[in-house]
Amino acid sequence: MAEALRIGIAGLGTVGASVARVLRDKSAELTRQCGREIVVTAVSARDRSRDRGVDLGGAKWFDDPIELAEKADIDVFVELIGGDEGAARSCVSAALDAGRHVVTANKALLAKHGVALAEVAEKKGVLLNYEAAVAGGIPVIKTMREAMAGNSVNRVFGILNGTCNYILTRMEAEGLTFEACLKDAQRLGYAEADPTFDIEGNDTAHKLAILTSLAFGTRIASDDIYLEGISNITQADIRAAGELGYRIKLLGVAQRTESGIEQRVHPTMVPTASVIAQVHGVTNAVAIETDILGELLLSGPGAGGNATASAVVGDIADIAKSRPGFQHGPVFGRPAKELRPYKKAQMRSHAGGYFIRLTVHDRTGVFAAIAKRMADNDISLESIVQHANGSDGATQKTVILVTHETTEAAVRKAVDGVTKDGHLTDKPQVIRIERAG
Amino acid sequence: MAEALRIGIAGLGTVGASVARVLRDKSAELTRQCGREIVVTAVSARDRSRDRGVDLGGAKWFDDPIELAEKADIDVFVELIGGDEGAARSCVSAALDAGRHVVTANKALLAKHGVALAEVAEKKGVLLNYEAAVAGGIPVIKTMREAMAGNSVNRVFGILNGTCNYILTRMEAEGLTFEACLKDAQRLGYAEADPTFDIEGNDTAHKLAILTSLAFGTRIASDDIYLEGISNITQADIRAAGELGYRIKLLGVAQRTESGIEQRVHPTMVPTASVIAQVHGVTNAVAIETDILGELLLSGPGAGGNATASAVVGDIADIAKSRPGFQHGPVFGRPAKELRPYKKAQMRSHAGGYFIRLTVHDRTGVFAAIAKRMADNDISLESIVQHANGSDGATQKTVILVTHETTEAAVRKAVDGVTKDGHLTDKPQVIRIERAG
Ligand SMILES: NC(=O)c1ccc[n+]([C@@H]2O[C@H](COP(=O)([O-])OP(=O)(O)OC[C@H]3O[C@@H](n4cnc5c(N)ncnc54)[C@H](OP(=O)(O)O)[C@@H]3O)[C@@H](O)[C@H]2O)c1
Ligand SMILES: NC(=O)c1ccc[n+]([C@@H]2O[C@H](COP(=O)([O-])OP(=O)(O)OC[C@H]3O[C@@H](n4cnc5c(N)ncnc54)[C@H](OP(=O)(O)O)[C@@H]3O)[C@@H](O)[C@H]2O)c1
Repeated sequence: MAEALRIGIAGLGTVGASVARVLRDKSAELTRQCGREIVVTAVSARDRSRDRGVDLGGAKWFDDPIELAEKADIDVFVELIGGDEGAARSCVSAALDAGRHVVTANKALLAKHGVALAEVAEKKGVLLNYEAAVAGGIPVIKTMREAMAGNSVNRVFGILNGTCNYILTRMEAEGLTFEACLKDAQRLGYAEADPTFDIEGNDTAHKLAILTSLAFGTRIASDDIYLEGISNITQADIRAAGELGYRIKLLGVAQRTESGIEQRVHPTMVPTASVIAQVHGVTNAVAIETDILGELLLSGPGAGGNATASAVVGDIADIAKSRPGFQHGPVFGRPAKELRPYKKAQMRSHAGGYFIRLTVHDRTGVFAAIAKRMADNDISLESIVQHANGSDGATQKTVILVTHETTEAAVRKAVDGVTKDGHLTDKPQVIRIERAG
Repeated sequence: MAEALRIGIAGLGTVGASVARVLRDKSAELTRQCGREIVVTAVSARDRSRDRGVDLGGAKWFDDPIELAEKADIDVFVELIGGDEGAARSCVSAALDAGRHVVTANKALLAKHGVALAEVAEKKGVLLNYEAAVAGGIPVIKTMREAMAGNSVNRVFGILNGTCNYILTRMEAEGLTFEACLKDAQRLGYAEADPTFDIEGNDTAHKLAILTSLAFGTRIASDDIYLEGISNITQADIRAAGELGYRIKLLGVAQRTESGIEQRVHPTMVPTASVIAQVHGVTNAVAIETDILGELLLSGPGAGGNATASAVVGDIADIAKSRPGFQHGPVFGRPAKELRPYKKAQMRSHAGGYFIRLTVHDRTGVFAAIAKRMADNDISLESIVQHANGSDGATQKTVILVTHETTEAAVRKAVDGVTKDGHLTDKPQVIRIERAG
């Protein structure tokens, strides 16, 4: 049997402690699967005295993860600290420079410095594996990087943030407000004390940026992603969506278009009967559409210590199965040096259907004025629903429009026009509709 | 750059011709992804004069695929002939004996001789890849064999036959009979002239047998699978399922139980709101439940030249990325020699909910007799629906029972009892209910 594979883990929090536990509990089975033992020989975290709930046995402790990365007797460096700069970035760089394989779950780091790190890994001939960084336990990196070799991707989209999906699921199921659901998510540990990063879509954007690079062979460009969070989704939207045969999900979407690559994160209407509409709670899902394979959908747990550890352990096992002299494929599917500059499609040229909810004064001529603004911008309507708000003597009405395929520019112009006409009593709501099978 | 990887393809039918086309059309992209060229240097089929719709360029023709496997200048032998004996078996054996990597899409061959072939591959230190053999383009082999390293599987189940799912989908959507849908499937090329193998569940069983081995580390035992096809599913079942919140799918299910491993293929009621219930038409899906990762679901095209070729090309690309001296993980996840004997759970001990549809004489006491038979066998009922058949003067009634969790043995005894009581006017229908998220 080959020599044991020696692992150093930096970061022993939710994910790090789970990884250490799985490697120990499943040691015999992993040895059988990989043909060699996997042993944790070094660890690092901030607080040496903290109980990690797992026996770290003979692993050597390092106060400094950079020292671990450079000096420990390890074959693989596992980074589970988090953050796009600071300790995480420094120790991953140090490990790669020292010619060690690296496994990480750090989407923020990869979204920001992934290409540069991949260049170092490829120059050094070591692996940089990051299955856990996108959609937790779902093997989407392996699928896109390995299984889909030779495929040209047209579109990749998904539910990539469990917090948002949990909130939207409960809002729909229980008729609660966004705020109430967010509070519950925080109480249950599904959302951070400061939830901005999740609910405004930034976390989804980091993951989408990585998928975009894998899909299209482009350099990662997470700052170029159009962002819209879920905080202004109301019960009125959710109910109207349901009546029209849609469900609202926060999606990250990357799509090849004539004018470049669209990358966008926003609340989206998906058909209630689609597979992705059935993905509830903290579950994540990714759909990939290609020229050869067609449409593939993967769904599963996107976070949590165990599910994330499963992906990290899978990455470690892949390295354990390799032998010296072996060289695996490039980090982002194509050699990092050859990743093409990313050509951004403007959001205003986005083509698709739109849901538009308008709260208007209940007076004659309003509807005709709205219809005219739509027609003037060549927007044809698939359906129109109009109802009074409240019961007696209501002075407001709700008008819901669902458009056929049109452009973002046309919708913005039409809605601006309606706003200028002075008929609205509240902010207009516009939600994009996404095709989904 | 490494030397080109030389491919020999035996079988140039639906899948083989697609593989040759993809390797040629995507040559530049594959070279970029794999770091070396992939070239088809040898081919074999029965009829040399047939136009394959693809330029086979300089590939050397072999009338005999065994000669190709043994003598051609190739690194990888791709078997796309089909069948569990004959040419396919002989040439795969010959290729492995000659120390060549093998890629195949042949589920029948693997279900019957997979373990023996894996032993040869592992002894020779070559790869035997077969992603396309189960669920076509869906990367379920890669997921179970690589991504889930260290996980213990509790259950794996799926829609593994597109023909059956197409028929059931149309029966539900259009209210047509089984026979009418089968005819359409044949006309559209979704079903063979002799459809027995698909509709009686044998094809699903082959694929399930492979998944079972990967899931539980057992030797493949496809002859031990409990089999029930879809040919006796009627509109009455489909309508009743719908009313009760279920949809009928032909599932293959492998599950760890206290008394061994259950492997079964049968029509199954899944909750209409589950993800798998949304998998329509020829699409396939596989759900895997493990201790660490949790529940994962993959859905996508299970057949067709292109989708299947995508999986074959992924397998070839994995080999292209490897280098001499490299040794990958075992064929079925664990070394073939260490695969455990398969311990079969008896179907009669299967535990779960059941749907029971009885057509009975419309006379007093019948319902009480049925209820007594259920109670006598400790079967508790979740719901009971009773309605007259036809309108006026009907002399028959339909009784539909949905049970809480019980055992197959209890249900069989109860239904036998009801039959003996002489109240039935037609064969009783029993359909198992499967939990699905
Ligand atoms: N949690 C999930 O569900 C999940 C899912 C997917 C991906 N991820 C990613 O996985 C990574 C880890 O997440 P987590 O949830 O496990 O985080 P966490 O629970 O906050 O753990 C972070 C760990 O890093 C250690 N650490 C922080 N700064 C350090 C430093 N300068 N030197 C050494 N150790 C340091 C901490 O030490 P102390 O314990 O001593 O404070 C702690 O053990 C992140 O990149 C995250 O995005 C997490
Ligand atoms: N079709 C799918 O969607 C699909 C999906 C998943 C897996 N698969 C599997 O893929 C494999 C191939 O399926 P297919 O649909 O491509 O079959 P196919 O269209 O019937 O093609 C079979 C090919 O094998 C050749 N062949 C038959 N006997 C031969 C022999 N003795 N020597 C050399 N060549 C021989 C045939 O030659 P001629 O053309 O000269 O007759 C033909 O080119 C099967 O194992 C199948 O189960 C197929």
